[in-house]
Amino acid sequence: MDDTKLADPSQINPNARYSVNYKDIVSRYGADLAAVEKAIGDHFQSDVALIPDVSSYLISGGGKRIRPLLVIASARLCGYTTGTRHIDYSVVVEYIHAATLLHDDVVDEADLRRGSESPNMKYGNQASVLVGDFLFAKSFQIMSEGDDMRIVRSVSSATRNLAEGEVLQLVNTCNLETSEDTYMDTIFRKTGALIVSCMEIGAILGGAPPEKEKTLSEYGKKIGIAFQLMDDALDYTADEARWGKPVGADLEEGKVTLPLIRAWKLANDHERRIIRDAFEHDDGADEYIGQVREIMERYEALSYTVDLATRYAGEAKEKLSGFSPSPHLDALAGIADYIVNRDV
Amino acid sequence: MDDTKLADPSQINPNARYSVNYKDIVSRYGADLAAVEKAIGDHFQSDVALIPDVSSYLISGGGKRIRPLLVIASARLCGYTTGTRHIDYSVVVEYIHAATLLHDDVVDEADLRRGSESPNMKYGNQASVLVGDFLFAKSFQIMSEGDDMRIVRSVSSATRNLAEGEVLQLVNTCNLETSEDTYMDTIFRKTGALIVSCMEIGAILGGAPPEKEKTLSEYGKKIGIAFQLMDDALDYTADEARWGKPVGADLEEGKVTLPLIRAWKLANDHERRIIRDAFEHDDGADEYIGQVREIMERYEALSYTVDLATRYAGEAKEKLSGFSPSPHLDALAGIADYIVNRDV
Repeated sequence: MDDTKLADPSQINPNARYSVNYKDIVSRYGADLAAVEKAIGDHFQSDVALIPDVSSYLISGGGKRIRPLLVIASARLCGYTTGTRHIDYSVVVEYIHAATLLHDDVVDEADLRRGSESPNMKYGNQASVLVGDFLFAKSFQIMSEGDDMRIVRSVSSATRNLAEGEVLQLVNTCNLETSEDTYMDTIFRKTGALIVSCMEIGAILGGAPPEKEKTLSEYGKKIGIAFQLMDDALDYTADEARWGKPVGADLEEGKVTLPLIRAWKLANDHERRIIRDAFEHDDGADEYIGQVREIMERYEALSYTVDLATRYAGEAKEKLSGFSPSPHLDALAGIADYIVNRDV
Repeated sequence: MDDTKLADPSQINPNARYSVNYKDIVSRYGADLAAVEKAIGDHFQSDVALIPDVSSYLISGGGKRIRPLLVIASARLCGYTTGTRHIDYSVVVEYIHAATLLHDDVVDEADLRRGSESPNMKYGNQASVLVGDFLFAKSFQIMSEGDDMRIVRSVSSATRNLAEGEVLQLVNTCNLETSEDTYMDTIFRKTGALIVSCMEIGAILGGAPPEKEKTLSEYGKKIGIAFQLMDDALDYTADEARWGKPVGADLEEGKVTLPLIRAWKLANDHERRIIRDAFEHDDGADEYIGQVREIMERYEALSYTVDLATRYAGEAKEKLSGFSPSPHLDALAGIADYIVNRDV
């Protein structure tokens, strides 16, 4: 397969187009993120032994911590300087994300997650369902110890969207006629909504006026969508060892994402038959992935997806233009850049 | 099998020992319960089509509505007379209960629920997991629209206990050495905690002073435990058609409940071998259920369980003695009686 469209060096060099490098952002908030790591481990303690095991296996096993980073950076941007509530709420969003991953893996019957055996394979579907429920419950318990119902409102709305997005994805499994609109709605719900909530939490913690909160929420929506678009492109193009799950997993699981929607739309009858075959032979989908990727290349479906992600990330950065310059603003701009330039 | 211990007419005659009949309690709160039914249907509406289908199949398909009844009766007892928040919170507790049932059925690989095909059989495990998540999220969204963080705190703590109770049950699957203490802790968490929360919600809505809230919460804990004890006895003794699931399902699923713990404790080596065989041949457990029930009868393990439930229900009623007489107090006493006298 010709990978040049995604292998453009200006895109994959992690320093090329960033105002701030992701690693630098992570180190800037190093103390806060270390506190988040500690709190993540503290909060999943339970006298029920399996719960910390499964939680730790999943959550301490990696992840970009992009959601905590967004809570922290937006809180700091809005002037939140004292206290540790940004740490607690970072745990909240990371737990909700982790709960979703646990349930997703059960729904997708996934074998791998971040390059290791997925939690459902290691501990069983039953443990994944129930520990996911524990993490959901624990998130709301942490929030209930705070005093801000607006944050509960934001996170519960995001959690509801998350569940709806997952159901939308489920009902459209193998539906090659899924429209771009439905797809965009699905990815907003399943990925964008929680990222919006991260920004709202930061704005609320920092006491931002409503119009600033709204602007940050719009930034969150844009980067959330960009993030999922990139994920859906990377699913077909990433380096398997670094990506941590099989390339083409979406195809194998019958997930109809933008690269496929685009390719399907433009494909001729013969090509459509190949795509449909790939779905119907889901056990042996591996042998079909190459063919489907060729069709995607032919119709530039992958670069179409990456371009759209890049456009969303650009619009997200534009949203930041009304804020006074600050290192926190640079961090948010850097996160938007990172999202569309990452290769993993 | 000799059923006399459970078939004592003074126990199964629904009018014999009640201060108030359950049916009468239901009709007393008929207007409120009708509003709850309507709100249950309204709140699970979603533009994602599968969600109302699955929710309606499960929630509108029956159930005793005991949790809403407890919210309503305790709120009324504590002087809550105006407004409709008791209706909203009734939906909250019923949704959390329903979400747990959806996830339980996935965990237990259940085929039947209330005499019909279980939701996971009808719609698939994937839909059950995700619609359960939707109902959890929706519960917290309804609460976040209210203004009382104490209620969020109560319900999130209950939800956490629920998840922990389910995990405890999972890790003790087929563990015949499960202690009575562990069992009691498990049933408090998986059933008692949410019922405690129902009572706390009522007390908070009615503006009850802390000591009254505490007393009602203790009543809730007692009846919650009594409820699960009876469920665990009925699992072995109920009339299958009315019970709505196979008798002996717990045995088949490897759930170690009090009747079995008690029988195991007293059984001789030969009887223990029979019990262990019943677990090991879980496909053909049907043929073993009769033998295991005989052992239970021999050691009065079922009446031991029912007696304990009856003691808890009695203690629950004693908790009510500090309140002035009122029809709402009679209703709560009647619910305690109903719980240990029901045959379904």
